[in-house]
Amino acid sequence: MKDVRVLEVKQSVFANNDKQAEELRKDLKRRKVYLLNLMSSPGSGKTTTLMRTIEALKDEMKIGVMEADIDSDVDARTIASTGVKSIQLHTGGMCHLDAEMTRQGLDGLEAGDVDLAILENVGNLVCPAEFDTGACKNACILSVPEGHDKPLKYPLMFTVCDVVLVNKIDVMSYFDFDMEKCMEYIHMRNPDAKVIPICAKTGEGIGEWADWLRSEVRAWQE
Amino acid sequence: MKDVRVLEVKQSVFANNDKQAEELRKDLKRRKVYLLNLMSSPGSGKTTTLMRTIEALKDEMKIGVMEADIDSDVDARTIASTGVKSIQLHTGGMCHLDAEMTRQGLDGLEAGDVDLAILENVGNLVCPAEFDTGACKNACILSVPEGHDKPLKYPLMFTVCDVVLVNKIDVMSYFDFDMEKCMEYIHMRNPDAKVIPICAKTGEGIGEWADWLRSEVRAWQE
Repeated sequence: MKDVRVLEVKQSVFANNDKQAEELRKDLKRRKVYLLNLMSSPGSGKTTTLMRTIEALKDEMKIGVMEADIDSDVDARTIASTGVKSIQLHTGGMCHLDAEMTRQGLDGLEAGDVDLAILENVGNLVCPAEFDTGACKNACILSVPEGHDKPLKYPLMFTVCDVVLVNKIDVMSYFDFDMEKCMEYIHMRNPDAKVIPICAKTGEGIGEWADWLRSEVRAWQE
Repeated sequence: MKDVRVLEVKQSVFANNDKQAEELRKDLKRRKVYLLNLMSSPGSGKTTTLMRTIEALKDEMKIGVMEADIDSDVDARTIASTGVKSIQLHTGGMCHLDAEMTRQGLDGLEAGDVDLAILENVGNLVCPAEFDTGACKNACILSVPEGHDKPLKYPLMFTVCDVVLVNKIDVMSYFDFDMEKCMEYIHMRNPDAKVIPICAKTGEGIGEWADWLRSEVRAWQE
């Protein structure tokens, strides 16, 4: 299997993460790099969704992926197999990424020439929501087996996300998952959130998601 | 629906959580209260497993449940419907419970007369593993849809857990889940971990889990 680069990212020494995040966003705007922060629980399908996203968009734009994990490099190896730029970020036990860690990741990725950089954040519905990474937009994946009540229990995550991908809709009939309630709860947290039901395994819904992402990247680069 | 008590627990002012945890464990031993710390990702089935556990053991021992959540009281309402003592702990955005918060919860629960107190920790595979709550044992639930690779990615959780319940085995055939690999990865982290495959929805495996918990409580009270 292809070797992947592993970068140990260090927590910010700066007290003001929000300021660092704003500065990173300005840099990205200047360099015409669109950064997406992708968050979710462990095992909701971030990496499989990323594989589909790369497949859908890699012929139209340069993509780079940062895989943040506490340990292991299994996800970065999977991503590297698609041929896009990728790097594994190890957080040294940290449960989230801040703006400075994200900047270190982008430097490590040598992201200057990519159109779309995607940060796969640590699998966690709590802490990553508290830290602005400097991304242009936040996305989260909620998978059907996790249940439609998650926006009630993890309010901040669904408040800060611009788009929610509801994944694993192929197994909907095996779980007590109410899509209507799910949408209602998400919109209680963020009335403007875009909700896209997908199945990363079969590719269902990926077209709509790729359309959204494409128009985001184009608008950012104008 | 029955009203539940909601307690806002505050983070410890003590620097040394390990010391607080040891003291709490000694208190619990003196009072013959067995405390189990139950952890998992969001949506892996902690509450449903608890419902089954209560059903299996409530005629033999007094049970009390603390439901920790960042927000909402849906889980505590569910538990309250079984008739056992229960309380909702709100962590005010905190991603885990420490020993002092657990002590506040036990006081709020008035747990002095229970044989088995269960703390349902915040749904998170990262942070709760870092804080000794003072519990006698740690358990975690890993559900089939999350994937068998989770012990590779969230090493500390599987290192600190004495028992791992592999839940939702009824949907095994719909997911690429390798139970043998899962066991291997768990034992890489903790060779002594007991692994019990269960289906909280149907009750499969709950007997073995209840047997383990019963013998733990009895040994603690001797």
